[in-house]
This record gives sequence, structure tokens and C-alpha cells, in this order.
Amino acid sequence: MNINEKSEKYKQEFEGVFSEYITSRYKEDHDLDHACSYALRGEGKRIRPLLAMLANQALQGDLYNSLPGAIAIEMIHTYSLIHDDLPCLDDDNERRGRPTLHVKFNEPTALLAGDALLTDAFSTISEVSHIPRLHSELSLDPSQKLAMVQELAEAAGGRGMVLGQMMDLYWTAKQGASKKDLDFIHLNKTGQLISVSLVIGAISAKSHTKEDIEVFRNVGKNLGLAFQIIDDLLDNTKGMGKSRGKDREQGKLTYLSLMSEAEARKLAIHHTDEAIRLLSTFKENSQDLISLAEKLKNRHH
Amino acid sequence: MNINEKSEKYKQEFEGVFSEYITSRYKEDHDLDHACSYALRGEGKRIRPLLAMLANQALQGDLYNSLPGAIAIEMIHTYSLIHDDLPCLDDDNERRGRPTLHVKFNEPTALLAGDALLTDAFSTISEVSHIPRLHSELSLDPSQKLAMVQELAEAAGGRGMVLGQMMDLYWTAKQGASKKDLDFIHLNKTGQLISVSLVIGAISAKSHTKEDIEVFRNVGKNLGLAFQIIDDLLDNTKGMGKSRGKDREQGKLTYLSLMSEAEARKLAIHHTDEAIRLLSTFKENSQDLISLAEKLKNRHH
Repeated sequence: MNINEKSEKYKQEFEGVFSEYITSRYKEDHDLDHACSYALRGEGKRIRPLLAMLANQALQGDLYNSLPGAIAIEMIHTYSLIHDDLPCLDDDNERRGRPTLHVKFNEPTALLAGDALLTDAFSTISEVSHIPRLHSELSLDPSQKLAMVQELAEAAGGRGMVLGQMMDLYWTAKQGASKKDLDFIHLNKTGQLISVSLVIGAISAKSHTKEDIEVFRNVGKNLGLAFQIIDDLLDNTKGMGKSRGKDREQGKLTYLSLMSEAEARKLAIHHTDEAIRLLSTFKENSQDLISLAEKLKNRHH
Repeated sequence: MNINEKSEKYKQEFEGVFSEYITSRYKEDHDLDHACSYALRGEGKRIRPLLAMLANQALQGDLYNSLPGAIAIEMIHTYSLIHDDLPCLDDDNERRGRPTLHVKFNEPTALLAGDALLTDAFSTISEVSHIPRLHSELSLDPSQKLAMVQELAEAAGGRGMVLGQMMDLYWTAKQGASKKDLDFIHLNKTGQLISVSLVIGAISAKSHTKEDIEVFRNVGKNLGLAFQIIDDLLDNTKGMGKSRGKDREQGKLTYLSLMSEAEARKLAIHHTDEAIRLLSTFKENSQDLISLAEKLKNRHH
């Protein structure tokens, strides 16, 4: 099987388990569950779960053990999109080609569904009986689960993703930001969750060392920056499911506020190459991950 | 020392450790940390931390081990107040005698500070080096911390506190709710966090059994209902720091929509007595907890 087929197979595996999880967790007949289910079932690229699964594979772990963390990360990613889309932040009406949650339901429901998904993500890691298909397959011990909780909370919280969002807001429609400011925003707003996806995947492999974790953390930082630069380039040209060029319209600070398209593209290549260099530590076991990094660099949506 | 002096001593102990924690965690010079610090330093009654500490003492645990969970619970309680106060929910301008977060800062900052506090609560339990004074005193093992994460996430998430909030919203300004509907709202909106405070305190005591946990869970359900009924009675007469009689004004479903003041007071006494009966399992070690339950029943604010 070639490498892209393997990533595709992993994505299918994730979608199957994730869908069963959503059905079992958000099945009641009330709007909170409807809203959570609707948001999670959006046509995401599932990049973060794939990164977790592929980091597990790079360390020759048991793939199933990476799935609770992969699901939790996708839940946190989804909550962050829901809250970002709210009228008091980006005020977006469309996401992943569908109405955003506060448009489809209403604003209080969107706020609360985001809160629920964020909180429930920590349930998913700590109590895996919530994932029916996986329950009997898993062999994560309490220390592994606790390390996942710790890494995820730190990456997503007030020193991580939320801080990146806050700084992004701070610089919107302001002049005078440096490349350092912009890197800080994106290392946190985008990079932390991408980084922690790899870290959690690594933790899920029994054989991981402390050094492995730090390699993956650095890979994630580089991939996160590359990912965001490509996002800015795409937003600048074609639009990305959300309203075309919205970031620019809102006066958001982007890499193209600070450099030319050609320079930005070069920077994305630099960060991807650095990630690939770091991944070579894991020899042929990281081939699928390297292939995904290349694919992300060349993506068109 | 008499019993109320002991509760007061515990509260002082909590305030000291909590204040150090806030200073060490939210010290950067940006609005996200300012907002988190401002919210956490509000003049709370710290009932939930006290319940955790007293449950630990009922099982003759090491008091220090109850503090990470106690802090995490207070952070989750604080986030829930921040989000409840937002314009799209209760739209409250005042809380604990001070401007609410979105009034003091702005709406996006309040939204994000709530998200940060919720997420960081899980950091606090999983990585106790965040609490400088406690670090060397603690002897919680990974299974205890993981059990705390699991209980807290389940109590606060989409099957717990957030669901209660959603149902409260659903019934606002609607007719036809039964006492069962109202109990469901409050068992979740208020009761779950009160219950999990006791459960986490019990987990923090090394000697706890599964049966102890279930006793405390039931004590918490009864105390939670009693607490909410008293809240409704107080809201109906004197106001509670937030704007006077606001719940009634907004058409919220309260116990006084379904019964007389005398009946409501009788129900609060019934639930408190039931909690005290359950606590008698722990003999003289639960005297302080029983005393707190009595105090909550008789409180005037």
C-alpha cells in the first residue's frame, strides 16, 4: 500500500470510531446533544487525529491506544471553532461549508455546546468506556492517561491556545506587530494543538521516551507555523470554506501583513523541512508522518 | 476549637494556597491573565473547596491532598459564573458585589477567560507543580489524580453542569414544567459540582472505598438541592449580590414557581436532614461537614 493510502486508511479508521463515539455520547433528545453532534460531524480534515495516530505509529505503538487522545483533541479543536465563530469574536456564519452553530441553533446553545465539548474531551481520555468499540482493545495505564490530560490542558488553556486567540484579538486592526508577535500568536493559537496531537500520540505508545516527546513537540511547533502560513496564503487567494478573505477583511494580523507571498511560501517550506529533518530520528517508521507534512504544505484548501 | 472555628480555619488555609496559586499562574501582563485573576479573586464563599476539604477530613485524609482538587473546582465554578453572566445568557452586570467580567473587560475577554479557567482546572489537578506551596507536601498518585479528572469532567460537562444550564434556559419563560424537571435542572446545574466537590475530597483521602464515594455523591445531591432551594428563597426576598430578584424577573423556573415559601423551606430542611443522615456513616469525623450543612441551610446570603 502506498503512503497516501495508509493515511486515508487511518482517517477511515478514525471516522468509524469517532462516529460511534458521537452516537453513544450525544444521543439524547435535547438541543445540547444535537448541537454537539452537529458540530463534531462537520466535514473536518481530521489533521490532528491523524497526527496523533501517525506519531503513535512512528514509535511502533498500538494504534488503538492513540484513539481516545485523537478524539479528545478533535473535540477541543471543534469547541475552539465554535467559540471563535461566535458574534463577539469572529462572527462567522459558515464553517466547513455549513451554517455555524450559533446560526443553526442560537448563541447560548453554541456557547454551552463549546463548553460541553471542551469539558467532555477530558472525560474521553480519563474514562475510555465512553468509546464502546475501543473499550476492550485499550491498554493505556493511568500514568499515560494522566500525562495526556496534562499535556492537553496545558496546550489548550490560558498559556496555550486560548492565549493565542486572545493575542490574535489584541493585534486585530492594530499596527506595529513584529514577526515575533505573529509567531507567538500562531505558535499558541494553532501550533499548540498541532504539537500536542503529536505528543499525545507519542505518549500513547508504550515505548516512548522523554526525548521522543520533545522531538514531537518541536515537530509540532514547526508544522503548526507552516500550517498557519499556508492558511494565510490560502485565505488571501481562494477562501477556505469560511467567507473568502475574511481574515484580511477583519484586519487580522497575518503573515502577509509582514511579508510577500513568495517570502511566506519560503517560510512554510522552511518550517516543513525542519519538521521532516526532526522526524528522521524515527527512520522509516515516520515515513507516513513525513508524507502528511508534505501534503499539508501543498494543500489547496 | 469549636466547629465553626475549624471551618473558618480551613477557609483561611484555602484562601492562602489559592491566592499563591493565582499569583503564580496568572501573572503575565496581558488581559487574559488580568481577567482570570480578577474573576478568581472575587469574594466567593468557597463552599465547594470547603466541602472537598471536609470530605477529606471525614475520611481522615491528609488535608493538603484535597487542595489541588479544591482549587480546580473553584476554577470551574468561576468559569461557569463568567459564562452564565454573558449577554447571551443571563446578561448580568454585577457578581459578588463587583462588575462582571464582560463589563469590567469586554465580552471576548470574558468568553476566553472562562475557556481558560475551565481548561486550566484540569492542569491544576494533573500537574501539581502549578501550586508552589503544595508541591512538596503532596502524595497523590496518578490513579487518584486521574479519578479526580474523570469525576470533575463528567460532573461539569455535557451530561452534568452544562446540561443543567441548557435545561434551565429551555424552561425560562415557559409554562408546564414539573417538579421533576426542576429537580433535573438543579441536580445538574448546581448539584453536580457540589457533589463532585465531596467526591474529589473523598478521592484525595488514601483510605477511601468505592462505597464512601457513593455516600458522598448522595450527600452532594441532597446538599445541592437544598442549596438551590435556599438560593431561590433568598432571590425571592433579599437579592444575592447579583441584581435583586433577577431570576424571577427573567421568568426563570424556580422552586417558588411550583410551591409556597413554606413548602420550599420544608423541602430544603428535608434534603439537608437526608445529607446529615448519610454523613453519620463517618461518625465524629463528619461533624464539621454536618455543621457546614446546617450553616448552609440557615444562610442569609
